[in-house]
Amino acid sequence: MTSADPADLGLLSPMRGAAGATGDAAVLQAMLDAEAALTRAQAALGLAPAEAAAAVTAAARAEAFDLPGLVARARSGGNPVIPLVADLRRAASSYGAYVHRGATSQDIVDTALMLVAHRALGPVLAELDGVLERLAALAAEHRGTPMAARTLTQQAVPTTFGLKAAGWLSLCADAAERLDAARRALPAQLGGAAGTLAAFETDARQEPDGRAEPGEASQGPDARALALELPARFAAELGLAAPVLPWHVLRTPLADLAHALAFTAGALGKAAADVLVLSRTEIGEVTEGVGGGSSSMPHKHNPVRATMIAAAARQVPHLTATLYASLAAEDERPSGAWHAEWQPLREALRLVAGAVRDAAELVADLRVHPDRMAGNLAVEGDPGPAPALVDRALARHHENRRKT
Amino acid sequence: MTSADPADLGLLSPMRGAAGATGDAAVLQAMLDAEAALTRAQAALGLAPAEAAAAVTAAARAEAFDLPGLVARARSGGNPVIPLVADLRRAASSYGAYVHRGATSQDIVDTALMLVAHRALGPVLAELDGVLERLAALAAEHRGTPMAARTLTQQAVPTTFGLKAAGWLSLCADAAERLDAARRALPAQLGGAAGTLAAFETDARQEPDGRAEPGEASQGPDARALALELPARFAAELGLAAPVLPWHVLRTPLADLAHALAFTAGALGKAAADVLVLSRTEIGEVTEGVGGGSSSMPHKHNPVRATMIAAAARQVPHLTATLYASLAAEDERPSGAWHAEWQPLREALRLVAGAVRDAAELVADLRVHPDRMAGNLAVEGDPGPAPALVDRALARHHENRRKT
Amino acid sequence: MTSADPADLGLLSPMRGAAGATGDAAVLQAMLDAEAALTRAQAALGLAPAEAAAAVTAAARAEAFDLPGLVARARSGGNPVIPLVADLRRAASSYGAYVHRGATSQDIVDTALMLVAHRALGPVLAELDGVLERLAALAAEHRGTPMAARTLTQQAVPTTFGLKAAGWLSLCADAAERLDAARRALPAQLGGAAGTLAAFETDARQEPDGRAEPGEASQGPDARALALELPARFAAELGLAAPVLPWHVLRTPLADLAHALAFTAGALGKAAADVLVLSRTEIGEVTEGVGGGSSSMPHKHNPVRATMIAAAARQVPHLTATLYASLAAEDERPSGAWHAEWQPLREALRLVAGAVRDAAELVADLRVHPDRMAGNLAVEGDPGPAPALVDRALARHHENRRKT
Amino acid sequence: MTSADPADLGLLSPMRGAAGATGDAAVLQAMLDAEAALTRAQAALGLAPAEAAAAVTAAARAEAFDLPGLVARARSGGNPVIPLVADLRRAASSYGAYVHRGATSQDIVDTALMLVAHRALGPVLAELDGVLERLAALAAEHRGTPMAARTLTQQAVPTTFGLKAAGWLSLCADAAERLDAARRALPAQLGGAAGTLAAFETDARQEPDGRAEPGEASQGPDARALALELPARFAAELGLAAPVLPWHVLRTPLADLAHALAFTAGALGKAAADVLVLSRTEIGEVTEGVGGGSSSMPHKHNPVRATMIAAAARQVPHLTATLYASLAAEDERPSGAWHAEWQPLREALRLVAGAVRDAAELVADLRVHPDRMAGNLAVEGDPGPAPALVDRALARHHENRRKT
Repeated sequence: MTSADPADLGLLSPMRGAAGATGDAAVLQAMLDAEAALTRAQAALGLAPAEAAAAVTAAARAEAFDLPGLVARARSGGNPVIPLVADLRRAASSYGAYVHRGATSQDIVDTALMLVAHRALGPVLAELDGVLERLAALAAEHRGTPMAARTLTQQAVPTTFGLKAAGWLSLCADAAERLDAARRALPAQLGGAAGTLAAFETDARQEPDGRAEPGEASQGPDARALALELPARFAAELGLAAPVLPWHVLRTPLADLAHALAFTAGALGKAAADVLVLSRTEIGEVTEGVGGGSSSMPHKHNPVRATMIAAAARQVPHLTATLYASLAAEDERPSGAWHAEWQPLREALRLVAGAVRDAAELVADLRVHPDRMAGNLAVEGDPGPAPALVDRALARHHENRRKT
Repeated sequence: MTSADPADLGLLSPMRGAAGATGDAAVLQAMLDAEAALTRAQAALGLAPAEAAAAVTAAARAEAFDLPGLVARARSGGNPVIPLVADLRRAASSYGAYVHRGATSQDIVDTALMLVAHRALGPVLAELDGVLERLAALAAEHRGTPMAARTLTQQAVPTTFGLKAAGWLSLCADAAERLDAARRALPAQLGGAAGTLAAFETDARQEPDGRAEPGEASQGPDARALALELPARFAAELGLAAPVLPWHVLRTPLADLAHALAFTAGALGKAAADVLVLSRTEIGEVTEGVGGGSSSMPHKHNPVRATMIAAAARQVPHLTATLYASLAAEDERPSGAWHAEWQPLREALRLVAGAVRDAAELVADLRVHPDRMAGNLAVEGDPGPAPALVDRALARHHENRRKT
Repeated sequence: MTSADPADLGLLSPMRGAAGATGDAAVLQAMLDAEAALTRAQAALGLAPAEAAAAVTAAARAEAFDLPGLVARARSGGNPVIPLVADLRRAASSYGAYVHRGATSQDIVDTALMLVAHRALGPVLAELDGVLERLAALAAEHRGTPMAARTLTQQAVPTTFGLKAAGWLSLCADAAERLDAARRALPAQLGGAAGTLAAFETDARQEPDGRAEPGEASQGPDARALALELPARFAAELGLAAPVLPWHVLRTPLADLAHALAFTAGALGKAAADVLVLSRTEIGEVTEGVGGGSSSMPHKHNPVRATMIAAAARQVPHLTATLYASLAAEDERPSGAWHAEWQPLREALRLVAGAVRDAAELVADLRVHPDRMAGNLAVEGDPGPAPALVDRALARHHENRRKT
Repeated sequence: MTSADPADLGLLSPMRGAAGATGDAAVLQAMLDAEAALTRAQAALGLAPAEAAAAVTAAARAEAFDLPGLVARARSGGNPVIPLVADLRRAASSYGAYVHRGATSQDIVDTALMLVAHRALGPVLAELDGVLERLAALAAEHRGTPMAARTLTQQAVPTTFGLKAAGWLSLCADAAERLDAARRALPAQLGGAAGTLAAFETDARQEPDGRAEPGEASQGPDARALALELPARFAAELGLAAPVLPWHVLRTPLADLAHALAFTAGALGKAAADVLVLSRTEIGEVTEGVGGGSSSMPHKHNPVRATMIAAAARQVPHLTATLYASLAAEDERPSGAWHAEWQPLREALRLVAGAVRDAAELVADLRVHPDRMAGNLAVEGDPGPAPALVDRALARHHENRRKT
């Protein structure tokens, strides 16, 4: 390490998660996976020899590539695929001509981003399920535990801590549902230079050395059918959804993912906002199990996990706004709107992954203080149907469980 | 009109639509509708006399209220419901005590905003359907019309105008699907002071003058059941969805609506961005049918509709980011996050409504110039499977049609 | 009023201020003022008869124009100046040809927006000065009043309320300085069709009926000099700054104003955030003098002014982000980036004006409870140099006062 | 490298610059520089032995620290300073007690971020100066080169390429001025646990082992004066501005920097937007000197530098909106608003640095085609005073040069 080392390991983003699944090495591997899947899909359709598929797949290991060099060489053309294809062709040696055949950079970058999101979100969803379970348990346990409901900072009427936890459960379940749906829908991208699939059709008629295959003229319809079949085959190789159309400038997957990410950050942010209020020295109705110290006040017990979630929730809506703004992309590949998506998407994934991890740790060991809740309660009345509302939320939760 | 008149009629927002459906008068009417629906729902459950329901419903006509006065009086408590309830109680005279019984301001504001969205989006969706039809016709007509695909501003390979239109169709269909789903899910909001429904339970045991009903003690369970049933009944009165839980601080409906609005603005923005490129003097491949003049250059034929859509698409993601940020709402009613939603939601609705209207006008009379497309085409090759991709998009469109 | 009345009087924006100064009528008057100033400036340079200047100025009264009609007619060309010029020409009857001579719509809209901002911000700055005075008094009065400093929601070490107020003072003074500087720099805009001033030069050689003036050929240099002198003369007529270049696509004034607005909203938002914490039922160290009730809980004493400010502070950064994004405006007039500025700028002005007004009311009658502060204080130590830091902040405040 | 390596080297951000100056290693070094400067400042005031200052300074070399370990350990307390102080104390061995004495984590993180910004922006400003020079040369060279001005995508009237370049120059000069001013104002941060400087006063009376210094009681005033003097001394050690007050929750420096960064990204984005239009195949009035290829169409000559700048300009306003939103920070250290600033600030710095670098490369070798400009020109008239406006812009440029 020298002070000019460009690596960003997250020193300024302790609220970041899924670091490994979203790092440059993971992105590089995902791009290589996309390239290899393309050759395999072409082989499966008879458009490439099986040996080429095997050779490209074998060569497509991130650790064999010079990542810093790729980063540097990506500047010239403005995307990392151009240098990567050159290196992968070399690595595939005699089958190099079967690498990236008919594809364009965007096919690889978009598919790789979908793969990265798919892979990163798997564990995130599992961890979020755990959060839901724990919230359900908290809601059940404190179904009738009275505490002050607070509106505009003032104690309003009594509620129960169970209802508060049931609200968190309900909102986080909505988030999990949206995140899971968005993840399942993540499609591979394959369209060629401008989304017409034309180069794949042409390739279906020729060997990569440009020599026409026997009977080219009569193969037209077959070549077209093969080109049209290729994207779904490509997607299947990668475990991604098959696209209806090439979506290079139809950014539905990005916008849907943006929604799920901003929603999840906000849902966890709601719970964190409540924990922050309830943790205040003067309120003290909940405490984080571990809590964080301070460099100047080691005695403090800070609600650090809630703080991290709150910090993530403040950042994500701005990152996803960039993604929404990129929907309005001109031409068959826009000059800027596409490139502006990459890093904000990655940062949003990291922040949501971190927020889920922090939430898991937060709820795993949240200390609830019913005595403090009772002691603080300065308004009269009773929580009325609050416990019955908890039951409703729990019933929905258990029904959701059954379905999955 | 004096120069101190505060009215905003849209002079600085010519890209705004649904002006009537989203104006203060419409919001006021929606708030009154919510209040009247509440009394009717209570009457339906035996919690209020039928005469009260009739009286409140009769009184709840926006034109009978002093809108500027309400705006002025809304400042003190920070929301318009407090003065409105006072006025409505007066208007309902002897049944005034049955107005807003058990409810809180947020119940009315949130429900009214959902009503406004529901009402505004109905015609918007119908108009968007028309856009889809016209795009499908354009895609079919120009299925094979060759033109240059452009990537990073440069001609890349040939595509067809049909595929471009099919892309717009596909993206706008995704938008319509999300907007329709979000609209159908818009729920009424009813929770009382802090979302526990407690006041409704209490009210179920008492006359509004505080006198306990006969047999109160033994009526406990019934009162609770009635309180729990009330929100769904309330929603049914208004044609809105019934909520699982009071969602005063579980802002799923707002976030889902934000997504649908930002998506729709962006989807239309994509088509507009393409029209703007293709309309350039030097390209001239499409022309807006009407086009706009200029105060200094009356001869100009500006792509004004596309410009209006583009301007809307630039604003909406920032407005919806405000909504996403409000998910992280502390307590049972946050100090700021809730209030910050109102106007941005309304502006986003207006911009999307305007963008759909402008898109309808744009596609209704878009002039396509295949000769110019052919003449500009400076790259070799043929569009390959592009027409087949158009067919796929049209098949999906027709399937969607069948379903609805 | 019918429920289709499009007027937005602020029912959904109780945190809005400067309603009159930013309403459509005020914008219309500002556009008319710009038109009249142009003719007067031309008259001053001998490019129009003095009678034309008088006639246009006399005709340029907003109340004589059909505002709803202008709003409706603005849609066609996408801006309100095109119909306005037609109406103003008619109103100026025989001098109609001297209306808008050589100008373009953007000259009028941009200049009008600068005028609106200039006029709206004058009272805002005066009110903000009052806030600073009151904060200085609070800081002085409570220079040594001990209270808990809180970090990450936990009591940390003692500070003084005076230091907290001095912090608010310091940040709000920074805001006032930026807002005042931005306001003073607001320039008039005049460039003609594409910012070259060419039409003004041409006009300088011709009568409006197209008849060349005597000696046209020899008048070239004078015509150019007059055209170049016109913008400064125009600005002087309006009390705005003279631009170096036409800034139609050099949006420095908008970005600087965006900064000042977002800064001011955030600075007041900081004070509001603190008041909201300190007002909590369980903390109770400050109380808003008036406070707001609730439609369900009339006994509550909500910190409504702080809530309104907080709600404004949440919205402004998103509105100003739209303005910053519009810096990247293509061509000599962009298709969307320009139009997207108008309404967000107006909303940001309104929100900042409202936040300043709410802050003025808040600090005018903020109740400070030193006993509660002392009672809550659960950490040991003393505030050390805190009072001396207050003195520093007050010294800076008094020095600033002297300068102005 | 394994696929779980978290390092982000910029593979998804080819528009990023200042990678070395903003990487984790640079941030770590800046934090260490801040710690060492604190001990030196204390030594200079007699609050620490000179040997301690020397020892801490010698130990404060980033390469001696375990960066990945620090990243991992930063999660627990939510910031990297807590583990760093432990490690630095160990490294300073017998002088460890003089490390971080009286300071809080925020003092170190904030100061380090200011240092990182200061160091990163130095070369950026120098490079931006070069851009201004080149733009001035372009404006002068093409002062009278006629081309079409375009408004709303249509040719409007003639202008000159010189005026377009002069506009870029003017806007970029505004950016440079704001960036330079913001950089010069970047202050060190020193306040201790809650911004009262109290711990520094206490420390001034005691040895780090808690032993009171001789004559403690009588040293009160001196201890206070020393504590109050310390921040300026600390700032001087680092070459940063001295703060009036601790600004831990008075985020003027962040907001001013946000403005300068968003402004610069937008100013360069304006030039890039124009280059993208003028580079279009059908317009062809300018060409990037180098241009980028494509993985599918190696013959293409894409305007890659302009694309990169445009992509940066789309991201920065959202990142800076996060910073503006953090102005409204509650308490003496907020739970989230502060932490949410770190990474967005770094990303904004990187994007602006990259945009300036890309702009430098773009203008260094921009090919201007006056023949194409003349050939495309389809509107009549002449550019009128356009060349004279160029002269004005150049005069301002040369005056600015003289001043610096």
